[in-house]
Amino acid sequence: FSTQSESLLAAQKMGNIDTSHFMAEPITDLNKLEVNPDDMKTKMELLIMRIQKEFCEALEQEDGGKFLIDRWSRHDPKEGGGISCVLQDSATFEKAGVNITVMTAPLSKQLQASMRARGKELPEDKQFTFFAAGISSVIHPRNPHVPTIHFNYRYFEMQDEDGNNKHWWFGGGTDLTPYYLVEEDVRHFHSVLKSACDPHHPDYYPNYKKWCDDYFFVKFRGERRGVGGIFFDDLEANDSSKVYAFVKDCAEAVVPSYIPLVKKHKNDPVSDAERRWQLLRRGRYVEFNLVYDRGTKFGFATPNARIESILMSLPLHARWEYMHQPEPGSPEYKITEVLKNPKDWI
Amino acid sequence: FSTQSESLLAAQKMGNIDTSHFMAEPITDLNKLEVNPDDMKTKMELLIMRIQKEFCEALEQEDGGKFLIDRWSRHDPKEGGGISCVLQDSATFEKAGVNITVMTAPLSKQLQASMRARGKELPEDKQFTFFAAGISSVIHPRNPHVPTIHFNYRYFEMQDEDGNNKHWWFGGGTDLTPYYLVEEDVRHFHSVLKSACDPHHPDYYPNYKKWCDDYFFVKFRGERRGVGGIFFDDLEANDSSKVYAFVKDCAEAVVPSYIPLVKKHKNDPVSDAERRWQLLRRGRYVEFNLVYDRGTKFGFATPNARIESILMSLPLHARWEYMHQPEPGSPEYKITEVLKNPKDWI
Repeated sequence: FSTQSESLLAAQKMGNIDTSHFMAEPITDLNKLEVNPDDMKTKMELLIMRIQKEFCEALEQEDGGKFLIDRWSRHDPKEGGGISCVLQDSATFEKAGVNITVMTAPLSKQLQASMRARGKELPEDKQFTFFAAGISSVIHPRNPHVPTIHFNYRYFEMQDEDGNNKHWWFGGGTDLTPYYLVEEDVRHFHSVLKSACDPHHPDYYPNYKKWCDDYFFVKFRGERRGVGGIFFDDLEANDSSKVYAFVKDCAEAVVPSYIPLVKKHKNDPVSDAERRWQLLRRGRYVEFNLVYDRGTKFGFATPNARIESILMSLPLHARWEYMHQPEPGSPEYKITEVLKNPKDWI
Repeated sequence: FSTQSESLLAAQKMGNIDTSHFMAEPITDLNKLEVNPDDMKTKMELLIMRIQKEFCEALEQEDGGKFLIDRWSRHDPKEGGGISCVLQDSATFEKAGVNITVMTAPLSKQLQASMRARGKELPEDKQFTFFAAGISSVIHPRNPHVPTIHFNYRYFEMQDEDGNNKHWWFGGGTDLTPYYLVEEDVRHFHSVLKSACDPHHPDYYPNYKKWCDDYFFVKFRGERRGVGGIFFDDLEANDSSKVYAFVKDCAEAVVPSYIPLVKKHKNDPVSDAERRWQLLRRGRYVEFNLVYDRGTKFGFATPNARIESILMSLPLHARWEYMHQPEPGSPEYKITEVLKNPKDWI
């Protein structure tokens, strides 16, 4: 028996992976996934593949259009790749991007330094390799009364050339950026996230809600990107399966947190002034993503990164007007007050 | 005689400054400017005030509209302020911003470190104050056949709390970002810049042309922002008046380098595809300005910076499409080839 047929046999024993639940073939060879079902790398890749499919299907139902599915490899295909799903200039969504990435690559000196700055113990004289599997999505709807959502769930592993100095952690979050404030909608969104967090630890929701408010802060504007949600990084524990279970529940909460808001508002009447306000706020979204976003910066710092998949988060249209100020008391003003002073929603 | 009337007398002796040649009153008290006519701070402030007026008037003539003039002070008015002139959503120009700033402020620790990294000798145990006077402008025309222009000329002075460790330098540049390549226009633009440089030193144009190509490089796109021009920083010499004379000639070259291109193309016919291409390229402009631009980063790092005057450089509209690729051989393709491989135009 060759190694190839041995692993095929093993795969058959364990039951095959049904790829019809995915937007495309996974990035890692099916054989490799099937013989390592308990490896966290496998579990995370299969989770993000499934979440991608479920979220895209839910969005397609609200839109009527079909996602373009773009499966791509890194420059060196041994380093992995990704699947970028995009629905652009469509009925309900102006730009919807749902991207998964699975990669194994040497850690650049620049990223190594930034990991060290974040508290990871990485000896200076070693070369590190990292594995990353993550899903990342930004949905910009056409109707200004439907908020923009962003979420990202990711798993990292890192080790040196001798297989020592191993590190692993999870990160992620889901956050909402409405153009108009409907308090009931924001409460719905935060409640679904809280319900995903609470079974894992009562501190998770309040802590990660605060982290989210702090993270999505545009310092030079003195305002947050949106009404928050949850955000966490460097999450580790003795038992990785517990952290995985938490991340899985958060990722599964995306559809119920967001799709009801799309359904509710996608056919709301829209004035020219509301559309203009939406485009101005999209300009602010661009500012956060290009100046602050950690994932985008990680992408800029990764050699041969696939820039189009990283910048899929940018809206189809954005607008900047000199000194635009919403009129005090107006609906446009109301949302900016909340961006300046984040609230507890539950 | 009080000090006040003494300086008034002195001013009369020297001949008054005629503020009708400016968009607004200078930032520094007229009295102070009039009694220190040979101070480089005075000379630079009066130069940028005049250049602002001349450029705005030339643009108004092509547009028919009038600039909004916004004279503002820093949070602490003793630190100076600026004059932001904006023409927005007008006939020829979608967004034209011409800004001058004159400020004296303590140098933040962050900026002190970045100055040190650029080779300035600043003792760690001293607190520094800096003076900056500069003009900065970005013009986004409506017609995609008219290029976008940017220029910036600035003078810095710095000294520690005891008046020691003095530094001064000039920086600046003018560069062009066409949406469609008309080689004759690019040659005209570069020729005017070269004519401004050559009387000062034959190496200036070739050196600063190269510096410009290197500076306006978007690494993650592998392309330059435009077809270049000139760029220089940290320019000093034994005789500051020689550097000033060079900067003055560069600043005076802006109108003849650009206005003929506006006149020539402002009424060119425009297709929807051309407009869309212009908006996509404006997205790239936003990427450079938010991720790389040194002036913008300096602004982000300056406490209480006037963010609206800094981000005046952003276009009224921008667009991002996933994986947009111009068709090989098309006019859109032709310009991207030049952005990837900069040429000598003269």
